[in-house]
Amino acid sequence: MKKILVIGAGRSASSLIKYLLDNAAAENWMVTVGDVSLELVQQKTKGHANSRAIAFDINNDAQREEEIKNADLVISMLPAFMHMNVAKDCVRFKKHLATASYVSKEMAELNEEAEKAGIILMNEIGLDPGIDHASAMKIIDHIHANGGELTSFKSYCGGLVAPESNDNPWGYKFSWNPRNVILAGQGTAQYIEHKEYKYIPYNRLYTQIDTIEVEGYGKFDAYANRDSLSYRKPYGIENIPTMLRGTLRMPGYCNAWNVLVKLGLTDDTYKIEASDKMSYAQLMAAYLPAGKGSLKERLIQFMGAEATKESIEKIEWLELFSDRKIRVANASPAQILQDLLEEKWKLKEHDKDMIVMQHQFEYKNSKGESKRIESSLVVKGEDQTYTAMAQTVGLPLAITAKHILKGTITRKGVVIPTTKDIYKPVLNELETMGITFVEKEF
Amino acid sequence: MKKILVIGAGRSASSLIKYLLDNAAAENWMVTVGDVSLELVQQKTKGHANSRAIAFDINNDAQREEEIKNADLVISMLPAFMHMNVAKDCVRFKKHLATASYVSKEMAELNEEAEKAGIILMNEIGLDPGIDHASAMKIIDHIHANGGELTSFKSYCGGLVAPESNDNPWGYKFSWNPRNVILAGQGTAQYIEHKEYKYIPYNRLYTQIDTIEVEGYGKFDAYANRDSLSYRKPYGIENIPTMLRGTLRMPGYCNAWNVLVKLGLTDDTYKIEASDKMSYAQLMAAYLPAGKGSLKERLIQFMGAEATKESIEKIEWLELFSDRKIRVANASPAQILQDLLEEKWKLKEHDKDMIVMQHQFEYKNSKGESKRIESSLVVKGEDQTYTAMAQTVGLPLAITAKHILKGTITRKGVVIPTTKDIYKPVLNELETMGITFVEKEF
Repeated sequence: MKKILVIGAGRSASSLIKYLLDNAAAENWMVTVGDVSLELVQQKTKGHANSRAIAFDINNDAQREEEIKNADLVISMLPAFMHMNVAKDCVRFKKHLATASYVSKEMAELNEEAEKAGIILMNEIGLDPGIDHASAMKIIDHIHANGGELTSFKSYCGGLVAPESNDNPWGYKFSWNPRNVILAGQGTAQYIEHKEYKYIPYNRLYTQIDTIEVEGYGKFDAYANRDSLSYRKPYGIENIPTMLRGTLRMPGYCNAWNVLVKLGLTDDTYKIEASDKMSYAQLMAAYLPAGKGSLKERLIQFMGAEATKESIEKIEWLELFSDRKIRVANASPAQILQDLLEEKWKLKEHDKDMIVMQHQFEYKNSKGESKRIESSLVVKGEDQTYTAMAQTVGLPLAITAKHILKGTITRKGVVIPTTKDIYKPVLNELETMGITFVEKEF
Repeated sequence: MKKILVIGAGRSASSLIKYLLDNAAAENWMVTVGDVSLELVQQKTKGHANSRAIAFDINNDAQREEEIKNADLVISMLPAFMHMNVAKDCVRFKKHLATASYVSKEMAELNEEAEKAGIILMNEIGLDPGIDHASAMKIIDHIHANGGELTSFKSYCGGLVAPESNDNPWGYKFSWNPRNVILAGQGTAQYIEHKEYKYIPYNRLYTQIDTIEVEGYGKFDAYANRDSLSYRKPYGIENIPTMLRGTLRMPGYCNAWNVLVKLGLTDDTYKIEASDKMSYAQLMAAYLPAGKGSLKERLIQFMGAEATKESIEKIEWLELFSDRKIRVANASPAQILQDLLEEKWKLKEHDKDMIVMQHQFEYKNSKGESKRIESSLVVKGEDQTYTAMAQTVGLPLAITAKHILKGTITRKGVVIPTTKDIYKPVLNELETMGITFVEKEF
């Protein structure tokens, strides 16, 4: 019997745990799931015969070592910064590890030790990072294998709300970490276009957007991710003339979000004293330049041609012109906004979320002809538990874990899913579960 | 004989050292001046009989302790972050200290010990901070003493170039730390207006400006300083409805600087690889959105109504559209800009700098009438050595040092010049040297 230890049983672990338990009998697995909240674990393991539910404290060294020692493979669903003690124990006790997080500098440094220990530290095998790498590399490898030369690669992904649950003017609800959504893009976005580096500072990130289209789902806004350049090397496309990674939102979202950026309401670097004594209208007034008329009129005047009428209405829908009191004390503008948006953008009980991903490739084929491939993925959640986010993060992890334990993935050391031995079995099985890219060639 | 130790003999110490030496015989002072560069010291002490020039290494504990032990009063012209070892030695050996720097948290914590040691740690006694506190408090105290109630206090200061030396389209040359000029305003400016807190994020700081006028010198742009609120307490005006501190530039500067901010060229948070292989035109192209025409035309299109024709010409004057190579390698945009501006905005041999300061007070007098006082200071440099900056930073320090040694300033502990016992002798003597505020009442 193979023993799997899953650390973390939060929302994004639902589909992962379900897959592991559904396959446990056939694969002869014992699945231990640990979380600080035993109740959360029990809700997910549901007393399954091949499961063991435990209260687990990542900072309890003795417990962590004991559990990892007893496992064959560990899946860490912890936030990225909490992986390292687990990863070090995995190396020490020669146990495989899988995570959906970006490879940190510290993780990368374990490569040689992990190779020596004969184990895999599999990272970036969720959605983004994860499915994006796998599906992009499948096509890049295909183009290269046929003697083609990639000239442009643009890749977009967004965690959105399904059209049937889209009942607010922003077309957005939180299906993952709200704080990351509020702070998204702070810094300077960097990409390359026709061999020239391009920079977009935060102050105009949401005004310089692309529009992409996914058949059957219409158009989306796309803003540039902070660093589009670092994947040229792991993808083996160091000299590609154009490369951009972006984040998708419903049309109009970026124009309205730019209002909040320009006002200064996404700033997390200072606190507003006694913010809970203020109304949202007072908050707005503190950021708007002096002007005439109502707050709304002043906002319209302030934004000028930069904001559409619809964007101003989105701001109004958030009650930012209202006398309602702010609920958080001594909070940064970003914290005040997050508190409000967590109420306004909450997924309701029967709401479904939706993942949209699109890769756009341009290349010259072996005959020198210019060609284009567009590869798109849309996944909708089943419900509030088995969300599209939970499926697309959890299932690649689970499938990879299966192949590591079966010995069909044999790579050692610190690995991300950019090679065929990994992306092929993962993408193939995802297809059987309805997580399927639609490819179009031009 | 009283012994004064001056640490640091850079440009801004010229007027300080001259004052001390000019008064040394009459006051019976021995003035020791130390700097890492002995040559720099000797240029300033010029073999004066009451001077001692030494090479001084602030990190040499034995030397620092020895010199401080031998002094009666220490004047530190070091950058603010280097004061603390000096300040601690001053407390230990019971020696007075004067600096022109803001009171740091660490400095403030020495208050009790300094009081016990019977010494003064006099800070913020240069120009800004320094003369600004002194001159503002003189008027505030006067208003309060006459039963008035202050309703608004706005205070502006700028280190500029004198009109007769103003021969570039920006109307600006560096008379102090260039890096601070490049990074000025990053973060969010905070002030209070009619009892409402106001916030201006960096992305629009240079667009939301005030215009002030100084008789005989015309108009100036003023942008809000990062924190206008923290001086309400030391000024004893905690409940003032309106308070703003701002920085002055020549008219049109802010509109043009906003172009650099919006482009993203003042960002110091990331490096551009191999920046020394790029031209300034390539740098501009990397920040401009795609568009038609020349770089200049694209910039005009990008800025729209936000930039004047004159602002675009200021950018052109900086050679930012030219094929000239950037000189600094792997530099941040801010570092690239600083390197260029240090060339373009260099004070020439016979150039004079100029300090402009203006306070605007609104108050109700004891009869309930609304009144206004405007108090303005303009100081021009004599030459490149005795600049207006060196005079206005150094002379208040020197005068205060004199009064501490004479025993006419007796305050102990960590002190800033907000009280009459300090500001009165300082302002009175500055007047005799032509550093005179012109007051207008309305």
